[in-house]
Amino acid sequence: MNGNQFGRLFRVTTYGESHGDAMGVTVSGCPAGLELAVEDVQRELDRRKPGQSMITTSRDEPDAVEIHSGIQDGYTTGTPIGMVIQNKDARSGKYEPFVTAPRPSHGDFTYSAKFGTRNWGGGGRSSARETVNWVAAGAIAGKVLDHFDVEVKAHVNQIGDVRAPEVSFEEMLEHTEENPVRCADPDTAEEMLDVIDRYQNEGDSIGGSIYFETRGVPRGLGAPRFDSFSARLGQAMMAIPATTAFEFGLGREARSVSGYDRNEDWTFGDDGEPVPVGNDHGGIQGGITTGEPVYGEVTWHAPTSIPKEQTTVDWETGEEKRVQVIGRHDPVLPPRAVPVVEAMLNLTVLDFMLLGGRVNPDRLDAAPGEYDTDYHPSSPDDE
Amino acid sequence: MNGNQFGRLFRVTTYGESHGDAMGVTVSGCPAGLELAVEDVQRELDRRKPGQSMITTSRDEPDAVEIHSGIQDGYTTGTPIGMVIQNKDARSGKYEPFVTAPRPSHGDFTYSAKFGTRNWGGGGRSSARETVNWVAAGAIAGKVLDHFDVEVKAHVNQIGDVRAPEVSFEEMLEHTEENPVRCADPDTAEEMLDVIDRYQNEGDSIGGSIYFETRGVPRGLGAPRFDSFSARLGQAMMAIPATTAFEFGLGREARSVSGYDRNEDWTFGDDGEPVPVGNDHGGIQGGITTGEPVYGEVTWHAPTSIPKEQTTVDWETGEEKRVQVIGRHDPVLPPRAVPVVEAMLNLTVLDFMLLGGRVNPDRLDAAPGEYDTDYHPSSPDDE
Amino acid sequence: MNGNQFGRLFRVTTYGESHGDAMGVTVSGCPAGLELAVEDVQRELDRRKPGQSMITTSRDEPDAVEIHSGIQDGYTTGTPIGMVIQNKDARSGKYEPFVTAPRPSHGDFTYSAKFGTRNWGGGGRSSARETVNWVAAGAIAGKVLDHFDVEVKAHVNQIGDVRAPEVSFEEMLEHTEENPVRCADPDTAEEMLDVIDRYQNEGDSIGGSIYFETRGVPRGLGAPRFDSFSARLGQAMMAIPATTAFEFGLGREARSVSGYDRNEDWTFGDDGEPVPVGNDHGGIQGGITTGEPVYGEVTWHAPTSIPKEQTTVDWETGEEKRVQVIGRHDPVLPPRAVPVVEAMLNLTVLDFMLLGGRVNPDRLDAAPGEYDTDYHPSSPDDE
Amino acid sequence: MNGNQFGRLFRVTTYGESHGDAMGVTVSGCPAGLELAVEDVQRELDRRKPGQSMITTSRDEPDAVEIHSGIQDGYTTGTPIGMVIQNKDARSGKYEPFVTAPRPSHGDFTYSAKFGTRNWGGGGRSSARETVNWVAAGAIAGKVLDHFDVEVKAHVNQIGDVRAPEVSFEEMLEHTEENPVRCADPDTAEEMLDVIDRYQNEGDSIGGSIYFETRGVPRGLGAPRFDSFSARLGQAMMAIPATTAFEFGLGREARSVSGYDRNEDWTFGDDGEPVPVGNDHGGIQGGITTGEPVYGEVTWHAPTSIPKEQTTVDWETGEEKRVQVIGRHDPVLPPRAVPVVEAMLNLTVLDFMLLGGRVNPDRLDAAPGEYDTDYHPSSPDDE
Repeated sequence: MNGNQFGRLFRVTTYGESHGDAMGVTVSGCPAGLELAVEDVQRELDRRKPGQSMITTSRDEPDAVEIHSGIQDGYTTGTPIGMVIQNKDARSGKYEPFVTAPRPSHGDFTYSAKFGTRNWGGGGRSSARETVNWVAAGAIAGKVLDHFDVEVKAHVNQIGDVRAPEVSFEEMLEHTEENPVRCADPDTAEEMLDVIDRYQNEGDSIGGSIYFETRGVPRGLGAPRFDSFSARLGQAMMAIPATTAFEFGLGREARSVSGYDRNEDWTFGDDGEPVPVGNDHGGIQGGITTGEPVYGEVTWHAPTSIPKEQTTVDWETGEEKRVQVIGRHDPVLPPRAVPVVEAMLNLTVLDFMLLGGRVNPDRLDAAPGEYDTDYHPSSPDDE
Repeated sequence: MNGNQFGRLFRVTTYGESHGDAMGVTVSGCPAGLELAVEDVQRELDRRKPGQSMITTSRDEPDAVEIHSGIQDGYTTGTPIGMVIQNKDARSGKYEPFVTAPRPSHGDFTYSAKFGTRNWGGGGRSSARETVNWVAAGAIAGKVLDHFDVEVKAHVNQIGDVRAPEVSFEEMLEHTEENPVRCADPDTAEEMLDVIDRYQNEGDSIGGSIYFETRGVPRGLGAPRFDSFSARLGQAMMAIPATTAFEFGLGREARSVSGYDRNEDWTFGDDGEPVPVGNDHGGIQGGITTGEPVYGEVTWHAPTSIPKEQTTVDWETGEEKRVQVIGRHDPVLPPRAVPVVEAMLNLTVLDFMLLGGRVNPDRLDAAPGEYDTDYHPSSPDDE
Repeated sequence: MNGNQFGRLFRVTTYGESHGDAMGVTVSGCPAGLELAVEDVQRELDRRKPGQSMITTSRDEPDAVEIHSGIQDGYTTGTPIGMVIQNKDARSGKYEPFVTAPRPSHGDFTYSAKFGTRNWGGGGRSSARETVNWVAAGAIAGKVLDHFDVEVKAHVNQIGDVRAPEVSFEEMLEHTEENPVRCADPDTAEEMLDVIDRYQNEGDSIGGSIYFETRGVPRGLGAPRFDSFSARLGQAMMAIPATTAFEFGLGREARSVSGYDRNEDWTFGDDGEPVPVGNDHGGIQGGITTGEPVYGEVTWHAPTSIPKEQTTVDWETGEEKRVQVIGRHDPVLPPRAVPVVEAMLNLTVLDFMLLGGRVNPDRLDAAPGEYDTDYHPSSPDDE
Repeated sequence: MNGNQFGRLFRVTTYGESHGDAMGVTVSGCPAGLELAVEDVQRELDRRKPGQSMITTSRDEPDAVEIHSGIQDGYTTGTPIGMVIQNKDARSGKYEPFVTAPRPSHGDFTYSAKFGTRNWGGGGRSSARETVNWVAAGAIAGKVLDHFDVEVKAHVNQIGDVRAPEVSFEEMLEHTEENPVRCADPDTAEEMLDVIDRYQNEGDSIGGSIYFETRGVPRGLGAPRFDSFSARLGQAMMAIPATTAFEFGLGREARSVSGYDRNEDWTFGDDGEPVPVGNDHGGIQGGITTGEPVYGEVTWHAPTSIPKEQTTVDWETGEEKRVQVIGRHDPVLPPRAVPVVEAMLNLTVLDFMLLGGRVNPDRLDAAPGEYDTDYHPSSPDDE
């Protein structure tokens, strides 16, 4: 409603501005009995954090997460998990020129027009810094999904006009983290770095896209029609800052394909159940998952904060002026967005698994409604 | 949650199966004081209804809507509006072969797998027939938007490989309804009809896409980040049956464009307010509307119900079999989806306008919280 | 949000006005595989319907329900169940005197003040006629609860100053429906009828209350704190028209009781699990059900529509006038509210059971996530 | 859904356990442009905090709030406000005896039965310590309501059998904070202290109740039926730990009053608008506010944590044992619950005012949808 919540049963609530005091996220609906340590969350935050390479902002944030609640003796208790990430290297001063003179194509103007004011340091609430909260929440969702052998993975498949060849899920697992651009094809990664380098040197930036895929998502997720799996995944991906396109399965190419070519015959799987021959449907039929991998692409426009000179207007002085957004900005977004896409996948899949009864909403490892006296990780004897 | 609701303050709740007794939709949150007649809704349903031309299903449904509540003396009362559309030409018998032998790439299997059963006549709940409810609700939303000079329009911009040139909003208004394919460029419409005809004659079907655009959407709509305008619009469009891609602004092409090229300088508009020079941002910056037109594209895969022979399996008998889906099916989806896209735009925009205080949620034509004794359309004197 | 929805996973959405064309209710989230016939719903509506005795309104409504969707071959399909109840004996004409002259203490003025207009026939949307929708939805919830041996029961325990002695759950089951006042103690029922008769003869009306109790509600329902079992049950009961108090357990009397007297020791039950000795806690501890019966009371003020002369003002003419509300009105509310209270209990309990994983949200009789080829009530062989 | 959220447009999300690291609350939907300082929140927290007198727990918590986001230059920005209150004096050790041996009538068992585990220090999540979050959020809501001249006030009107006489709103404002029991009648306060003292000395505790009242709540709030003002207020109050009854207007007494006696004639107010003669309706008619004060009572049972010896069972050892809950516990709840009731009133009223268009959801001091270049508290010139 107010834009800071995602999920129905596994619900994430966030706060924080880019150069404010701290970012915070509350996860409610996480089943009890999940083994969870600060390191599980920190590991994912480290993948997203700034300053990792030449192609990311040089802002120096440790992004160290504190967990305030919801854990007892290393296991979740089923009650809300509050997490806070302090902003350490905030330097809002350099944004003063933009307080009343909005940066081109950034959220400066729309926030001020909507609210009459805004936190103007570094984009404030509109900054992609917000996604640190999403990655923290997604890390917890991912831990739950591990129990059900559900895996998600993403990699950068295009920067500018450089497009990666198709890669397998295994290649994504193996190679994505090997290079700063997070492309699972090492040769393409090199080309992409060249492209990024070129735009960066010109004081410019460039767009790109991410391919994502899942393994082990069970059949039957999705509540057609308005809450179909594709509708909610679409919302999740289009919520990521600077995205402009969401596709699944054949995506945009589906418009040129005939029904006969796209349709998939049914056969029997090894377990005697019907399975489709092929996966042009992208794991979703009639808005509900088929059990095949869900895959697709998300597109980002180029970062709007660039050193190259542009024109804006100052609504206080009524004057036009030339501006350069000199800051610590990423020249391209997808590389750091890979963990964000994975987080949103985790959150979407787990929420549907809870809604569809695939995960006990109260606790992980006991049958619904049965009280199990043997299971008390909080008892002194267990310590 | 259960998939049959859309919107937060302007909330639509639906029911109905393709070959069930009736379709139904409840609209809650419509402000009081809107002049509303059955004909206002019927007009939009007539645009969507089957049997309009050779390229739509020959199913003969009058799609006559009854309004059960929420209107007094021709004006809405602010209470829920219940609408029912009877299914008149349901013939579920011919779907018997598919009860336990799912049609390729349709929702038959996923529904049965999820629920253990399904309404198997004509796709049941998974059928696009459901969108009759959306169009009925969208017609009411559109009437409210008329009060605020907000307009939405869509047309078919690609079928197979035939793509329409760019057209203006005015051309869309003028030409879209002139041809059965609902393409605002008359020449392209002819080509599209040829393509559709070809696939139909082969017992096959084909995909396509729709371009949409708005006028008058006010600045400041959208609640970043999870409920950004683009995220909710993405959900709305991806909820439409058979959609596989959602794009706004430069969409998928944004990946190849530099920040400098895409960024838009600010200038002052006629009213002295900042306005962007150009609209590559598609009317949305930082997840919030800028006041510029919101535009984009939605892609549909080809209809899965085709006469061409395909293979399926019967989970009762354990046998493979060859099937032909001989029914009354559309060979292409976008032409009839144009009013559906417009309906979802109406619903999305109005919901955000209510959330953002642009429309009085209780009544249309009085200041918030003021009781106006002059306004009583229900008084006997007014009759 | 807009007041016509109840429940999170088992969600009820309603429309309709007292003297409008029809009442309607959509139930979403009902698991598939529930045997459900129109008669199951009709039976409960018949308990609530008007014209049953001298102490209920003489309005003649068959309250015949139509089910439009969500059922195949006698079993629910997991998709929304649309129901409509036509208004047959609407006579709004006699309400014309009140269009601009609000009846004392009725919702006439508040609706007009809020919306600037209203459906003025018989109270329109504010009428208790709306509860016909609740009872229809509650009947379905009750059928689901039958599968889990959960029972709810209510009876009228006070009218004016006449209070019934405590009765057992079995007495409630046996005697409640035996008398028109729906009091499970036959002697008290006679006294209550006398009281009602007396007020009715004076052109007046009288208040009263209902006692409710459950059996079989499982341990562990409720999501503290804002969605504690007691908070949601409180909302449910206070939503019933004309209620002014909600109590559970010792209720209002708890203020005079010491902790030692109210606290209940723990002992071991027959199954070796801890059980409380006594039930002063009303089946809820820490906002979560203990497995003991949930019980409490709800109070109704007297009906506001009375023949006795009262004063109102006409906001059109600016004049005071004397009015008599001559219509077909109940002189007391609790007798017909008994099925309404039971419906709200059913809806509250089932919603929490779904939220807590006690009921498979997708289907009743199969393990979560397992696809069962043996279960296809919709297959031709089963017919 | 998961119990840690309240409100629709003004939404509060909480986390934290009694003896965990910290309590946290995120407020979303607070309009921009509200002058807000840490002290505004701290003032209310100080009213609720422990250790204020002999009749409150001696736990020593400064309850110092940190605000992490949502404020710029002393004004809210319209984005989520994150707040954290550290737990300083947590001593969970003394709760070890109760890890597997639940305290009588406390939430120990229900939490363990639901989740299979729990944070067992001091009641963990079930503790009334959670209400520190509610008071923090309510303080912000109260600041918004100040702009609209809406006031709420509560005082303790009964402890055990000692009941205060009726007091005026002005007396409540003047006297409530003068004595530790927070009763606006000084003489009764003395008697109440005696009663509390007596129970405390016996190692026991006692119940009580609070009377609340509003001023300035506008006409037209409430969305009948399920979201009527009374239904949502009922939920709010029954969510407060240890409450067992909610009443408004005549409350439970309404059952004995006739329609004629309770009904209120209409007359014209000073402004020429209809106003009811009297307020037996408690400010709510047909589920919607009339503009008259909303008032009612809430009952608390006695605190369950008492030194007096009681019996419990240990589910690990299978043995019964005698226990004394020796800790720092309140002997009576209402005195510290006064600010909690006021907070829940603030949250309920403001949420409805936002929903009903009485408050601009985006910003306080500008007309909906108008962009005001004069209003930029964040601009450097304003500093």
